[in-house]
This record gives sequence, structure tokens and C-alpha cells, in this order.
Amino acid sequence: MTRFALTVEFDGRPFMGWQRQDHGPSVQQAIEDAAFAVTGERTAVHAAGRTDAGVHGAAMRAHLDIEKPITAFRLSEALNARLRPNPVAILACEEVPGDWHARFSCIGRAYEYRIVNRRAPLTWEKGLAWQVAQPLDAAAMHQAAQLLIGRHDFTTFRSAHCQSASPLKSLDVLNVTRSGHRIAVVAEARSFLHHQVRSMVGCLALVGLGRWSIEDMGDALAAADRARLGLNAPPDGLFFMHARYPE
Amino acid sequence: MTRFALTVEFDGRPFMGWQRQDHGPSVQQAIEDAAFAVTGERTAVHAAGRTDAGVHGAAMRAHLDIEKPITAFRLSEALNARLRPNPVAILACEEVPGDWHARFSCIGRAYEYRIVNRRAPLTWEKGLAWQVAQPLDAAAMHQAAQLLIGRHDFTTFRSAHCQSASPLKSLDVLNVTRSGHRIAVVAEARSFLHHQVRSMVGCLALVGLGRWSIEDMGDALAAADRARLGLNAPPDGLFFMHARYPE
Repeated sequence: MTRFALTVEFDGRPFMGWQRQDHGPSVQQAIEDAAFAVTGERTAVHAAGRTDAGVHGAAMRAHLDIEKPITAFRLSEALNARLRPNPVAILACEEVPGDWHARFSCIGRAYEYRIVNRRAPLTWEKGLAWQVAQPLDAAAMHQAAQLLIGRHDFTTFRSAHCQSASPLKSLDVLNVTRSGHRIAVVAEARSFLHHQVRSMVGCLALVGLGRWSIEDMGDALAAADRARLGLNAPPDGLFFMHARYPE
Repeated sequence: MTRFALTVEFDGRPFMGWQRQDHGPSVQQAIEDAAFAVTGERTAVHAAGRTDAGVHGAAMRAHLDIEKPITAFRLSEALNARLRPNPVAILACEEVPGDWHARFSCIGRAYEYRIVNRRAPLTWEKGLAWQVAQPLDAAAMHQAAQLLIGRHDFTTFRSAHCQSASPLKSLDVLNVTRSGHRIAVVAEARSFLHHQVRSMVGCLALVGLGRWSIEDMGDALAAADRARLGLNAPPDGLFFMHARYPE
């Protein structure tokens, strides 16, 4: 048996999310079905993170175990051939030790949230960014974001369905930058609560619109109360960018 | 009567091209139909350039004349509302003098051609870039591109359907840059022949693959013979980026 680590790009639009669901297509199922078509083995694919319906992956990391002798290159090529026409691509594939785990070995996760700040509707980016028609003050958003850095109880920014044992998380990076009409929010942490990035971005947008002061963001965090959430940003603009592992 | 200049973004995937066609949807028709819905007037929309089926516009410039009194802001908002669900967006709209012409006043056009150089298929960029699986040498492509700069007979890089009076064109910029798996080819000129950018990019790709030497590119240009064209790149990766006007 060989364990393979995968780097996966996927367009989240047609999927119910990463995780296998009874009621619709998932990225996990697409890869597991492709692996079955290639090897005849029913194998589970484990990812660094679960993503919601409509959220995208630029370089999700995952692993699976295969009994059949096959090289990483052949497996990667065969998976990509069998994944068609799903918008899921294996960007990289490598053999890893049997105790390497895409989720449990992961020591850092990075997301990017993409906002297009203009009145005109989206064309080719529809479903790939959040269009906000009113002007956003990205500098104020960045200032408010810095209040969230560090170890906090993120209950305000946590979905009611979150399965994490604790609402305490350490947020390492939350940077807001503007380039023309585009605003990018980059978030990095060891791990995130369910909906945490979208909830933080939603509240940052309220600051950017001038509806929340920077102090309101600090108050919302301190309240540790989901009822204080201002806005949950739509999944469209969210991309899982990177997973970090020891060495 | 007021003349309005438009800046238009469009996803070329569902269209037969910019220009109105009998046999399928066009960007021009989508905007003309939206203008009719807004004003009750049948007006022609003129663009800085015509684009082929599947080619995209990041900031195409166009103009139209409207009899009905309406502000540029209201026209822009109303066109965007009526353009749905077409992937066409009016990014900017302004009143211009009656002798301003999107095509005939234009003194510079810029295109960008996007290549994703990797084995894995495209996901959310499908139809928005050209995937080339074999490694491309972008530095060699850039070097070969410089042979095309200046005033030349571009017959080799010209479609058989080109309606231009002369195959002589002056190419100002043809830059090839790589960033990770992405290669961008930027082309700037006063005007281009039909298929010129795609034909130049196709031949540059042959150089990048090592199938053509840099000298082969010079020879193909000097031959001024369409039969010497190595490859016409697909429309997917081509974006009309910018049109320049006096002042």
C-alpha cells in the first residue's frame, strides 16, 4: 500500500463542497470515483480542509492510499483523465510516508477572498468573486482586520454547524489589499472554524462600507456571540490557497 | 442626439464574436438589444475592434448614439440591468463629441494572451486560457517575439478572411512573461490584422516548445506567406485589454 499526497485545484461552483454528501456532487466523491476507475479500489480521500458549497480550491492538499503498484506520475495522469468533465485537476502527486496525513499533519492553512468592488456585474468571474457595488475603504478594512490577529474566542465568526471542539483559534495573518477594483483578503492560521473566513470578510465589508466602525469589529469579536455577526460573505469569492506541513 | 462611449467587459465563451451575426449570439447584438429595451431606439454599437468567437474583452471601447435624453450614469445602469443574464458588463459610460468614433478615433489597441503551462487540465479557467501541457521556454518565446516588432508585411499571421486593405502593420510591443505556470503575451499596435495575435502566439508557442528555432520565426515573417504559419492559437486565451484615443 502506498500513500500519495495530492495537490488539487477545483472550481467549487458545481459542488456541494469538498466533503462527500448524500444529496449532491462533491469534490471528494469526484476524486474517489476517479481513483476507483483507475485502480478498482474504493479508497477514502482526506483533505487538509473541508470547503463549503461554491468555495474553490487553488491548491488543496489531500491524500489517499492505493494497493495497486502505480507511480505518482501515472496516478496523477490517470486521475486527471478520469476526472473529466469535472472541474477538478490534480496539479501534483507524490508518494509520502504512511503516517503523513493531509489534515492532521497540516500546520498552516491559507485562504484568499476575492472582492470585485464595482457597480457593473461580473462576467467571467461570476461565482469566482464577490461583487460589492458600493465603494469599500480597503485601508479601513485592513485596520479593522488587525484587531482579529492573535489568539481569540472566534464564536462570533463561527457557523452554528461548526464541529470544532473549541472556538479558540490563533489568527496569524489577515491582510486586505486593493488593486484597482479588486480587493483581496488573505487569511492564514493553523486552522479555522467553519465559516470563519467568510464571517470575518463579511464584517470587514461592513467596515469598508462605513456601516461599522473599526471599534465595532473589536466589540463583535469581544462579544463572542454569533448573534453579533454582521454579515457572512458569500462563498463565491473564497479560495483555499495553501496548506503547510513540517519540513 | 447624444453619443456615448462605453467600456465593455465580456466573457466571449457564449458568443460568435463581437460582431452581429445571423447564425448566433454576439456581444454587439446583446448591447444593441439592451439599448433598444432601455430607449426604444434601434441604434448601432461600434467597437474599437472586432473579436472572434470565444475571445474575451476586459475593456473593449464602443460607442452608440441615443436620441432620448438620458445621463451617462442612468444609461450605464439600465444597460447593465437589461444585459442580464448575458456575461457582458458596461464598466464605464461617458458622453463624447459626435465626431468621436470608437473604431476610427482609436490610435492604439492592446491584447493579452494567457497560457497556462501545465499538464493538469484547467478548472475555473477553462475557456479563459490556453492550456499547453509540454514545457514552454518563455525566454526563447520573448526573444523570437522581438523579431516581429516594427513595420512588416504580416501576411503569414493573417487570416484568409481578413478584410484589411493592406497586410502592412506596425507592431509596437510583443512581450512574453512567465509567472509560475502562467505565461502572458502582451501585444500592442495601432491596429492588427484578423487572427494576427493568435497566429503570432501560436508560432511563439512552437518556439517555446523547441519545435521552431528563433530563426524560423524570422523566416516565417519574411516569407509573407500564410502557408508558412506554424500554428494558430485557440481563441480561449485572448483578451482585448485596452483601446487608446488622442488626449
